[in-house]
Parts: sequence; structure tokens; C-alpha cells
Amino acid sequence: MAKKLLILGTVAFDSIETPVGKADKIIGGCASYIAQAASYFDIESAVVSIVGNDFPKEYLNQMETQKIDTSGIEIVPDGKTFFWSGKYLDNMNSRETLVTELNVLEHFNPKVPESYKDASVVMLGNLHPDLQLSCLEQMNKTPKLVVMDTMNFWMDLCMDAVKNTLKHVDVLTINDEEARQLSGVFSLVEAAEIIQEMGPKYVIIKKGADGALLFGEGKIFSAPALPLKAVFDPTGAGDSFAGGFCGYLTKNEDFSFEGLKTAIIHGSNLASFCVESFGIKKLESIDASQIKNRLETFKELTSFQLN
Amino acid sequence: MAKKLLILGTVAFDSIETPVGKADKIIGGCASYIAQAASYFDIESAVVSIVGNDFPKEYLNQMETQKIDTSGIEIVPDGKTFFWSGKYLDNMNSRETLVTELNVLEHFNPKVPESYKDASVVMLGNLHPDLQLSCLEQMNKTPKLVVMDTMNFWMDLCMDAVKNTLKHVDVLTINDEEARQLSGVFSLVEAAEIIQEMGPKYVIIKKGADGALLFGEGKIFSAPALPLKAVFDPTGAGDSFAGGFCGYLTKNEDFSFEGLKTAIIHGSNLASFCVESFGIKKLESIDASQIKNRLETFKELTSFQLN
Repeated sequence: MAKKLLILGTVAFDSIETPVGKADKIIGGCASYIAQAASYFDIESAVVSIVGNDFPKEYLNQMETQKIDTSGIEIVPDGKTFFWSGKYLDNMNSRETLVTELNVLEHFNPKVPESYKDASVVMLGNLHPDLQLSCLEQMNKTPKLVVMDTMNFWMDLCMDAVKNTLKHVDVLTINDEEARQLSGVFSLVEAAEIIQEMGPKYVIIKKGADGALLFGEGKIFSAPALPLKAVFDPTGAGDSFAGGFCGYLTKNEDFSFEGLKTAIIHGSNLASFCVESFGIKKLESIDASQIKNRLETFKELTSFQLN
Repeated sequence: MAKKLLILGTVAFDSIETPVGKADKIIGGCASYIAQAASYFDIESAVVSIVGNDFPKEYLNQMETQKIDTSGIEIVPDGKTFFWSGKYLDNMNSRETLVTELNVLEHFNPKVPESYKDASVVMLGNLHPDLQLSCLEQMNKTPKLVVMDTMNFWMDLCMDAVKNTLKHVDVLTINDEEARQLSGVFSLVEAAEIIQEMGPKYVIIKKGADGALLFGEGKIFSAPALPLKAVFDPTGAGDSFAGGFCGYLTKNEDFSFEGLKTAIIHGSNLASFCVESFGIKKLESIDASQIKNRLETFKELTSFQLN
């Protein structure tokens, strides 16, 4: 049986400015990054999203050649694609949103393709929690793993809806500040415990260039981010991480704590490529040997002897 | 031959306020933390420092029972001990200095005890870089390893002196913001390369609750900090880290990159105890089995399988 990953999220245009350069109206959106990263794991995936008629057909065609099913990407004939523009400050850790044009996203009603209603892994990318839930409700077989990403924006807007969707997911990926907002406590260890009580068996707290923490089964795993000499554009790093994480798990189906640890390293590995170019350029153009080689550096980076 | 560690630094009184409590006029100073952490490694150490006649003799006696030679701690009969008072903000990551009374520190002229002029490892705690250099100049045998700590205060005050002392050290421990200040660049990978050109073969960049990075021999090691449920007082964490690092290396004398990696884990381990109480209370009262058990959790925290 084919191993299938269903991805819900945005496919969009981004204009990005960072201290080292800028890029105008390039392809972005969380689902684009997730799908690109997951495509390296020899699985089948589908994206559920929405774009306008201004979105390049060539890109949808390219996704199809990467075994990314685009039949769940609704194309609104007279609509415009979601557009986001942002600027990163000197430290690349904080960013300012310059423009958000929801466009077709305003009336998005996700439709899961029939052939993906039995997907084994579902990745709910950063979107309104009600849309995330609607996607889950369309499944006709309980997925083996449901992963959810969210952000402070949704917690500010509709915390109850976030918490409602959370009841139905296995893994939440969230950054450190958002974990504090969601739990109401400062300690990440305590925050993870509180979030686990909201539903997810596992919580992954993303700390950008400082790596990620996995909490679950009373255990903690600390994953490093790869220290990089030059970061060009942090956009999509968390989504590439999620894509690598879900891609690996869809392929390998080891949903234990140990399996999730390995998946996180794969996610961190793909995120490290993502930030080395603007948009998805680097992420979509790496090859298997580059991925494998860099994966080995994670071992070197973290291994030590006790004596 | 005895394995000796020489420690230069302050022995002081601290008043500390954190979001979870406060402590008035407790024993502090970088040398106190370094010596306490290093004392767990079955080595001989000596502290070079200065106090006033207000400093409790019982504490100096206690240090002697821990095989910490205090003959290099000058007691100024009519002097007052260095006093620092600070307050940590909500996130425990930033602090505000409320009072700094240099007192006897103003005319400190470090004198290395004769029996420690051949110490194999020298730890230059956070003090004026000229005093750090003076300590090194008194050695009559080149130490096997010289470790230096410094801070933004000295870089603001006397950058040239910092750079001059740096020429004579093997390892610099510094936090991320300070590494950026010293190197003038944002990327920590690039910063470490620039700092290595200033003298130290190895650079350790401390990131507080996000762990530490070791750079040297063209390699990078990423060490986690232990995720803790409750942090009471971050004061002295970096010094406990340095003490564990130097204590381990003094005992084991493996000054290779691999040896330094293990030393960093020992340092992180001792730092994790330090922050669990105000001042040095917890650090001075743990036993060997507690240290050993927690050390094992660092393995669990970081180990993963690639497949």
C-alpha cells in the first residue's frame, strides 16, 4: 500500500527582505515548503490549498513530477493568490510583516481529495484552526499520525478554536514564545506538560537557530540546529522542518519516541538547506547525496563520550 | 604528580532577586562557582582572589576541606568584600545590575601561590584582562591549558587589553552576544573563526538555556543545556560550567577536541545544578551519584539513530 502524506496549508506569493538581500513575489506558503521537504522521502503526498489564476501552472506541474498531488489545490478563476510580504531585522530572529493580502484565502474551504482520505500521516500547516479541523473531519480512516502547526496569530484571534483542534492531534509543532503563550507558563518543560494535557501526545518546541525540543512519554530530546555561516532567508524553516519530519515518518512509520527523534533530525537537516537561499529555491534543488552527507554532520555535531 | 587547577576570579557577596525569590548578601563571585564545580573532580585547586575582613572565615575553611587552596585569597584587614546586587527579569535571560561596590577589588593585584605556578590548567575567571594576563605571567611553567572567560563590560572598557590577553589563551568561553561584539559579525560560526584568529585555538559560545557550541580544529560540537522545570537563580551558571569544564580537563588531561566535548557536558551538568538554588547552595551540596545520574540524562537527551 502506498504511503501517503496529506498536507494542508497555504500556497502563496511572498516578498521577502533580509539583511543580506531581497526577493520579490516568489513562491511561498507553508504547504509549499512542507511538500518540497517531504518530497525527498520517496512517498506520495497531496497538498490541500487554494490559489488564484495568477499562480504559475508550471509550478503546479513541477509539483506533480515530484509526486505531489495538486488535485486538492483549488484554483479560483477570478481570484488572486494569497500574498505576504515581510522584512527580517538584523538578527534574522525577528521579522516585521509589511503586507498581508488574504485574497482567495478569505473564502477557503479545504477539500481533501478522495484518494487521500486514508492518508497515514496528516500535516496540518499553519492556517485557521477550524480549517485544520475540517480537514481532519473529511478523513474516512483515522490517520496514524496527525501533526499540527500553529502560530501566535491564531491564539490571539481564536484561542478556543486552537484548543479545540489540538484535541485531535498527536504532535504539535510550535515555537518557544508560542508555547509560552499557549500554556501561560515560562518554563518550556512545564509548558510542554500543559500542552500535552490539551491533547497532543508529543510537543515539539522549535527554537530556530537553537534547535528544537521534543517532549513526550515523560522524555525529552534536544535536537540541535546546524550552525550555519550564512543564513539568507529564514522564511519556511519551520515548515521545511515539519515537512522533513512528516516525510520521514510517512516513509518509516515508526511513531515511537525514538522514531520521532530521528524524524526531527531529518526535519532539522532539511530546514538547514531551506535557509540557505530565498524561498524554496535551495530546498527544491538539493539531491539525495547532499541530504545524506549533511545528515551525517548532525551525528558529528552532537556525539560525545562520557567516561 | 598532583593535578592542579589554578583559578583566578572574584570571591564576593551577592544580593539577587529573581521572579521566584530573593537572597541577601550570599557568597558569590565567579571564582567561588568555578572552584565549587571543579571540586567534584578529585583534583587540587587554588583560588587567587581578594576579600575584605567582612568575609566569613568559615567559608574559606570549608574551601580548604574541599581541597581548594585559599592561600592565594588576599584578606584586606580594613577592606570590604566586593559586592554585587542584581535583579533578573521575567524571562531569567536578562538581568539588571542594581549595585556594584568594587571595594577591595579596586586595588587587586593577584598573587599566584608558589605551589601553583606549575598548575597544569589555569582558569582565568571574569576579571580585568590585565589581571588575567598578570596571573599568566607569574606561572613558571607553561600550563597545558589556559581557559579565559570575559564579558561585554571589559570589551566596552578596554577592548585592546581583552585582545592582548586573548593571544595567550587556549580556550575562550563567551556568550553569544559577547561573541558577536568581540568579532563584529552576527553569525556565530563566523564569529568563532574570527575569535580563533585572535589567539584561542578553541572557542566556546555559551547560549544559556539553549546550550553551548564548541568551535575548534574546523569542527563544531553542539551541547544541550538540560531543560529544567524550575530555574531559581541563573547567577553563576556560566562559571559553574567553566568549573566543571576545567575540573574535568585537569583530572583527565585530554585536551583534544573530543576531550573538550566531554568536558563541556560535565560543565553543562554542573551548571544545571547551580541554577536550581540561589547562589552556590545546591552546587556545594550535591554528591557524586547525583552528578553521575544527571550526566546520563545528557546522553538520553541527545542520542538518536539515523537510518
